[in-house]
Order: sequence, then structure tokens, then C-alpha cells
Amino acid sequence: MSDLKSRFIEVYGVLKQELLNDPAFEFDHDSRQWVDRMLDYNVPGGKLNRGLSVVDSYRLLKEGKELTDDEFFLSSALGWCIEWLQAYFLVLDDIMDGSHTRRGQPCWFRVPKVGMIAANDGVLLRNHISRILKNHFRDKPYYVDLLDLFNEVEFQTASGQMIDLITTIEGEKDLSKYSLPLHRRIVQYKTAYYSFYLPVACALLMAGENLDKHVEVKDILVQMGIYFQVQDDFLDCFGSPEVIGKVGTDIEDYKCSWLVVKALELCNEEQKKLVHENYGKVDPACVAKVKELYKTLDLEGAFVEYEKESYEKLTKSIEAHPTKEVQAVLKSFLAKIYKRQK
Amino acid sequence: MSDLKSRFIEVYGVLKQELLNDPAFEFDHDSRQWVDRMLDYNVPGGKLNRGLSVVDSYRLLKEGKELTDDEFFLSSALGWCIEWLQAYFLVLDDIMDGSHTRRGQPCWFRVPKVGMIAANDGVLLRNHISRILKNHFRDKPYYVDLLDLFNEVEFQTASGQMIDLITTIEGEKDLSKYSLPLHRRIVQYKTAYYSFYLPVACALLMAGENLDKHVEVKDILVQMGIYFQVQDDFLDCFGSPEVIGKVGTDIEDYKCSWLVVKALELCNEEQKKLVHENYGKVDPACVAKVKELYKTLDLEGAFVEYEKESYEKLTKSIEAHPTKEVQAVLKSFLAKIYKRQK
Ligand SMILES: [Mg+2]
Ligand SMILES: [Mg+2]
Ligand SMILES: [Mg+2]
Ligand SMILES: [Mg+2]
Ligand SMILES: [Mg+2]
Ligand SMILES: [Mg+2]
Repeated sequence: MSDLKSRFIEVYGVLKQELLNDPAFEFDHDSRQWVDRMLDYNVPGGKLNRGLSVVDSYRLLKEGKELTDDEFFLSSALGWCIEWLQAYFLVLDDIMDGSHTRRGQPCWFRVPKVGMIAANDGVLLRNHISRILKNHFRDKPYYVDLLDLFNEVEFQTASGQMIDLITTIEGEKDLSKYSLPLHRRIVQYKTAYYSFYLPVACALLMAGENLDKHVEVKDILVQMGIYFQVQDDFLDCFGSPEVIGKVGTDIEDYKCSWLVVKALELCNEEQKKLVHENYGKVDPACVAKVKELYKTLDLEGAFVEYEKESYEKLTKSIEAHPTKEVQAVLKSFLAKIYKRQK
Repeated sequence: MSDLKSRFIEVYGVLKQELLNDPAFEFDHDSRQWVDRMLDYNVPGGKLNRGLSVVDSYRLLKEGKELTDDEFFLSSALGWCIEWLQAYFLVLDDIMDGSHTRRGQPCWFRVPKVGMIAANDGVLLRNHISRILKNHFRDKPYYVDLLDLFNEVEFQTASGQMIDLITTIEGEKDLSKYSLPLHRRIVQYKTAYYSFYLPVACALLMAGENLDKHVEVKDILVQMGIYFQVQDDFLDCFGSPEVIGKVGTDIEDYKCSWLVVKALELCNEEQKKLVHENYGKVDPACVAKVKELYKTLDLEGAFVEYEKESYEKLTKSIEAHPTKEVQAVLKSFLAKIYKRQK
């Protein structure tokens, strides 16, 4: 593990101990142990990309100068707030989707004796963000902007989740609703704001920037987030399971994936009938028919073209930005995801 | 309906329209309609006591002077934020408790096609509070204090909910945990802060007060909230269903009620055995045995004594407060709940 990452993980331990001794609540042994276990189970087990990128971005904004211990701690704390936010969304998402596993272990609500208490644990995870921000940023001039930022991004994410949920209501499965604009809206709100814009916005605030003056940065990162999710949709079907670490089930799950949207756009009447009859079925024969159609329609080619176009557009936008440091942040994000295989 | 109440309800309509046209999200017809229906179903259907008490309290702090239209709107908006908070907690609580009805209608998650989407709707309800505060209070000097206040109270409520949930985990039902200190902690965190302290704290902030200087006010309101919940527990068993509007089921539900805690405190070994054998059973014969024991132990007398003592203590604390206007606020709260029958 890199030194950066292990130092970042140390900060998790500090934040957790503070939360377990929060004077705003009277913990006893059982409740402290519950939160301790819940946090360890749900917060630190991911790839930590979002969290680490706050530290990375902040360093780039500081022209690559070494961070002081204080700067490292604070940027890490903001990074962990994003990891906490992610944990909160995932715990609730798994309940709503009736999922079974997450990050190689049973979903939290599937753990014996947890069950629906997981919904309240999700709420606690969200509340921990406010506690962390209050503990460490209350006196900063950008404190209120941090609160507004997390609030707005959470609202956008929950709104994206809502359109995702209501377009796939059981018994109302309706492929005619699936279109590129809908796909873009789901992806932009459900994923792009919190995964791409939020880390950079946190770093900008710490660097003393006014977010109202960085609307183009937001736009670029949101576009990057959309591109990232299209990759995710593509890899779900065309990636190798050994590399991405899971077997994709978007077809079985009736997901509003970029692939099905693109297929519906390109196909003739007969092929459309095939999609309608086979999409969203668990039967492997149905899944195979859909995949075959994807090949017939050359969605791999369409994706390669999309990827190329996105990359060029993003690069152009980034290079149009007046500040070198901000360019560096955006380029580092783009480099991390361009042509990724997992 | 009082004029105050109907004007208060008008404000709900204004806030809802703003939320349905929030520029931070791209609504379409389906998503706007979903939120519209979800809000009408869950937010305005309660007694509105918490919300209205912000307006009341603010007027008392202003020495009873008529509020300007602007003051009325803003204090109502804060009142509605508390109603939104309550709706959020109730939607999730009903999911976690597997409840069937709420306010005379099916719980939101029981409504056809809603199901687990209700969890995300709960999240949206919480997020609406941040949107309302941002829309109407962003420029106020007390904006950041409002955010901190709602965040801290939400954290305390979720923490109280947690201890309530983990002490009643299915399969671990253990009456030996039920004690007055546990009951006090559950009640204080789960109910008192948001129902009693929060409305007054909102009014104090609007009146330009610093909450750090009102720790005694907080303590008094928290004590009042505990007293209120003890009444609630008492009425669940001894109130008349026609008056309180529902048939209590705390005994069947194995609730950590003040009554069972008091009973366990007062009873002999044989009576304790009776509680252990009959508490938390749906069988009406078991419920009847518990109720009979409550009568034998004269819990009605114990409650009357508790009520008298609480009232005297609270009155004394209130009268020790240096400011007349604050005294008026606290006395008005106490008068509303003292010896209530519902
Ligand atoms: Mg899911
Ligand atoms: Mg989902
Ligand atoms: Mg995917
Ligand atoms: Mg309940
Ligand atoms: Mg409950
Ligand atoms: Mg009750």
C-alpha cells in the first residue's frame, strides 16, 4: 500500500474514535460497539478513490508542494466525508435493490441482527459527516460553503436515485422510457456530482476558492462523471470479470444502461422486438440474445467512438481553463479513467 | 381551523412549489409528480404542533407583537422544516418497525408501487430541509447556526432511534436491560430534542439569540420532552382510545415504556416472573395480565406523582429564568402538555 494511502487510512481511525466519543450523545457500551462495527463494515472497504482524490487534488492546487500535517489531515478528513457519504448511499441502495453482496461481503442489512436497523445506520452515516465537519472545520471561513456543498450534492444524488428507482418500478417495466437523455440525467445526478465534482469542490474550498467562480470546473467534472458511468455500463457487459472483479448483471437487472439505450437507438423493428422480449430476464438464453444483438449492432465500436469523442471534448475544455493548477487537477482525473479496463 | 393554522398551511404550499421547481435538479413530469404526491402524503397530515410552536414561540419572544408578513413566513418555514424532519423520521421508522398505518392511512412504504423507494423518499425529505433553509435563510446572520442546529438535533434523534432499535432486536428481547436510565436516554434523544428543543431553538435564532447562551432553556425543554413521553407511555395503556385516537400496543410491542420500567422497579420476584412471561406477546390474555399488574402496583398513582413532581420542577426552573419572554415561551409549552388526556 502506498504511504499516502496508509496515512489516509490512519485518519479514518482518528475520525472514528471522535465519533465514538461524541459528547452530543450519551454512548454506552452496546451503542458504541454497534457504531464501531457498523463503521468498520461499511466505510473503509472500498477503493477509496473518491476520498484519496481530495488529498491529491488539494496538493495539485498547492502547485504540488508537500502538505503540512494539518493540511494532510484536513484534506483527508474531507476525503473521508465523501467515503462516509458513499457508504450511506450504498447501505440504503442495497436495501432498496434487495442486493445480496457488496464489496465481497453480505450487504449490511443482510448481516444477522442488523436487518432494517441498517436504514437508521444509513442515516447515522450521513450524520457523521456533519459531525466531522463541525469538529474540524467549524472555524474555517469556508465552513458554511462546505455544509452547503455536501447538502446540495446529497440532494442531487438522492434525486438521481429517485429517477432511477421510479423508472424501474416493478410491474411498470417500460423500455420505451429508456433514452439517452434519461440515461444522462440518472447518471449525472446519481453518480457524477458526488463522485467527480465533490472531491474537487472540497479541495477548492480548502484552497480558499469560491465555488461560484468555478462553474466550468463543475461542468467538466460532471461530463467526466457521465463518461465514467458509460464506461461502467460498457464494462458490465464487455469487460472481463477477472479484471473488474464481478460478473455484470445489468441486462438481467433491466438497468437503464448506456448499452441498451444505444441499442434501442440503432436497432430496426425486429431487433427492437428482440430487446423487448429478452431484456431484464434472468434466463441466460435471453441474456445471450441481448449480448449477441449488442455485437451485431457493433456497440463496441460505438463505445470506442464515444470514448474518443469524450476524451477530446474533455481535453479541449480542460485546456481552455485559465489556471494551470486547476488544469492539473482535471487532467489527473481524466488520466485515471481514460481507457480504463476496470 | 384557526387563522394562524390556515396561514401556516398556506406556507406549505409555497415551500412545496419551490421544491418542485428546484433548479439544482432537472425535474421531468414523472419525478415532479412523485415528489408532489410523496410530500402531500407524508408532510402536512399531522397535528402540526411542532411546526406551529415555532411561530408561537417567536411571537412570544417578540413580546407578543404582531409579526410582519415576512416574520410570519420565515418562522412558518422553520416550523415546516421541523414537520419535514418529523416526516423523514416517521417514513423510515415505519419501514424499520414494519408498521401498517400512520395518521389514519397506510404507511408510505405500504402504498402500492412505493415499497422500498420510501427509504429514498425519506432521504429526500431530509434534503428538502437543507433546500428550504438555503432558499430562505442563506443571507441571515444565523444561517450557519440553523444548519448546525438541524444537523445536531438530527444526529441526536438518529442516535436515540439506534438505542431504541438495538435494545429491541428480535431474538434478543431482554427485559433485564429495561431501566429508568435507558428509558430516559431513548426518550431524550429520540423525541425530546427535535420535538421540544428544536422549535424553541429555531425561534431563538430568528430572534437573534446565541444558542450557546441558552443551555438552561435547552435543559428545561429536554426535561419537558421526557415528561411528555412518559405521558405518552401512560396514555398508551391508561388513556381512552376514543380520546387519543388509537389503541395502544406498547405491551404487545415489547416497548421500553415508562410503565414497564416502573413496574419492574416496584415488583416482587413473583410479579417480575409474570412480566417476563407476558410482556411482548400479542395474546390478549397476556396483555390483560400485564395491565392487571400495572393496576396492582398502582402505576396510575405513580404516574400522578411523577406528573406532579415534574410540573413543580419545571415550573421552578422556568421561573428561575432571567428573561420574561423566554419564560413565556416555556410556560406556554408546559401549559399545552400538563395533564393532557391526548
Ligand atoms: Mg444497487
Ligand atoms: Mg439502486
Ligand atoms: Mg454498473
Ligand atoms: Mg414506530
Ligand atoms: Mg421505531
Ligand atoms: Mg407511544
